[in-house]
Amino acid sequence: MKENPLILITNDDGITAPGILNLIKVVKKVTDRIVVVAPDSPQSGMGHAITMNATLRLNKQNIDGVEAYSCSGTPVDCVKIATSKVLDERPDLIVSGVNHGSNSSINVIYSGTMSAAVEAAIEGIPAIGFSLCNSSIDADFKPALPYIEQIISSVLKKGIREHTCLNVNIPAVSSDLINGVKVCRQAKAVWEEEFDERTDPSGNSYYWLTGKFVNKEKEKEDTDEWALNNNYISVVPVHFDVTDYQSLEQLKILENEKESR
Amino acid sequence: MKENPLILITNDDGITAPGILNLIKVVKKVTDRIVVVAPDSPQSGMGHAITMNATLRLNKQNIDGVEAYSCSGTPVDCVKIATSKVLDERPDLIVSGVNHGSNSSINVIYSGTMSAAVEAAIEGIPAIGFSLCNSSIDADFKPALPYIEQIISSVLKKGIREHTCLNVNIPAVSSDLINGVKVCRQAKAVWEEEFDERTDPSGNSYYWLTGKFVNKEKEKEDTDEWALNNNYISVVPVHFDVTDYQSLEQLKILENEKESR
Repeated sequence: MKENPLILITNDDGITAPGILNLIKVVKKVTDRIVVVAPDSPQSGMGHAITMNATLRLNKQNIDGVEAYSCSGTPVDCVKIATSKVLDERPDLIVSGVNHGSNSSINVIYSGTMSAAVEAAIEGIPAIGFSLCNSSIDADFKPALPYIEQIISSVLKKGIREHTCLNVNIPAVSSDLINGVKVCRQAKAVWEEEFDERTDPSGNSYYWLTGKFVNKEKEKEDTDEWALNNNYISVVPVHFDVTDYQSLEQLKILENEKESR
Repeated sequence: MKENPLILITNDDGITAPGILNLIKVVKKVTDRIVVVAPDSPQSGMGHAITMNATLRLNKQNIDGVEAYSCSGTPVDCVKIATSKVLDERPDLIVSGVNHGSNSSINVIYSGTMSAAVEAAIEGIPAIGFSLCNSSIDADFKPALPYIEQIISSVLKKGIREHTCLNVNIPAVSSDLINGVKVCRQAKAVWEEEFDERTDPSGNSYYWLTGKFVNKEKEKEDTDEWALNNNYISVVPVHFDVTDYQSLEQLKILENEKESR
């Protein structure tokens, strides 16, 4: 492990969220070279959005002695502008979170926290997204902290595959109930939407997105949902090659060459 | 193939973009049961963003005789609200695009067009995202249209694997130069950012995201980038399980059980 690694911290709940303040606290135990670049407002559900048609702002701050910048963009913008404009050297690790709420199974696709980690992976930088399965602003992060430190230390020491990042979810239970760490795959699940339709004072409809989380693989012990439901911390390695290789052969029927048309 | 399939059309460039108007024109040749739900403003680069902390609006319109709704949300919001609130039955196919600009290789991750297709796949609905490799508002969609019709017809007839969608990119060349259709995998590529830093009238910095596209697999003939560079239409099957299965074994070192701690 490098003596004093440079670690970039970001999140999607915004730079003032308790989750990122807890993450900073943990990272301080591992290194004293830390830079924070995080959204200036909540960015949950932003997925891999980037700001293409507007400008970005950075505001320098100091969080508990750590060099920090709030950024007007998305979590992915934060990683891009941090590696390109803020940092003088390539970070050894990017950590994102701790998210207020689960990013397990299909949530990885919608999550700003995980998209920041995936962006780091695209750029070839080791990255970990941490989420606590409690979306309350008052969530208790304390039981999670020793595990977060352990996983960060292990990744710094042993590394992970290039272009892969980790999706770590932590059950929101007391320390004595956490059963350990489990490496698993993303469960197949879906949000079944139920838009809440309301009428504004002018008589026009508007909609709130709500939904019910449905796990389609309840009995599968190799999934992150199973691990979390059984009070394990789930670790899913995530990459950004979304090719469905199993479909390649079947789709050959779509192929044609100009000559044969 | 079902007699008169129900097809939902969306995009990320907004409901007035020439690309979606061209797509509507093609789909009309295949069925007369069409509903359009598309963003009311450009949503490029929105990735898989959803609107969680704000409300959504739908405005009914009529595009060339087709039932249409502009939606105040992201492309993924459009799919969610269409399947949940607008349509009375499950669509047989969701098509997204035609995007003004390539969504090949790593762009699939940032693309609102493809995220709409992925959302459909999550919901178990067959879906195709179409993109023309020319981001101009005046791009010529004509050479692409027969291929788009052919791919839609084939998917309606033969189907695709459940929870998979197609990422179709079309080179922006004249009909006689298109060499045919190639089924391929997502190339490994990256955007190397170069933020353009400017100073506002008050003397404060702001930033524009710019970047250079770098294909890391130039010689690989099984990739979408190779196909497009050789004037083939690229078809990549896309799924949403982002687990990096190859890393699972190596990461077992992170595992522990409570007993052994």
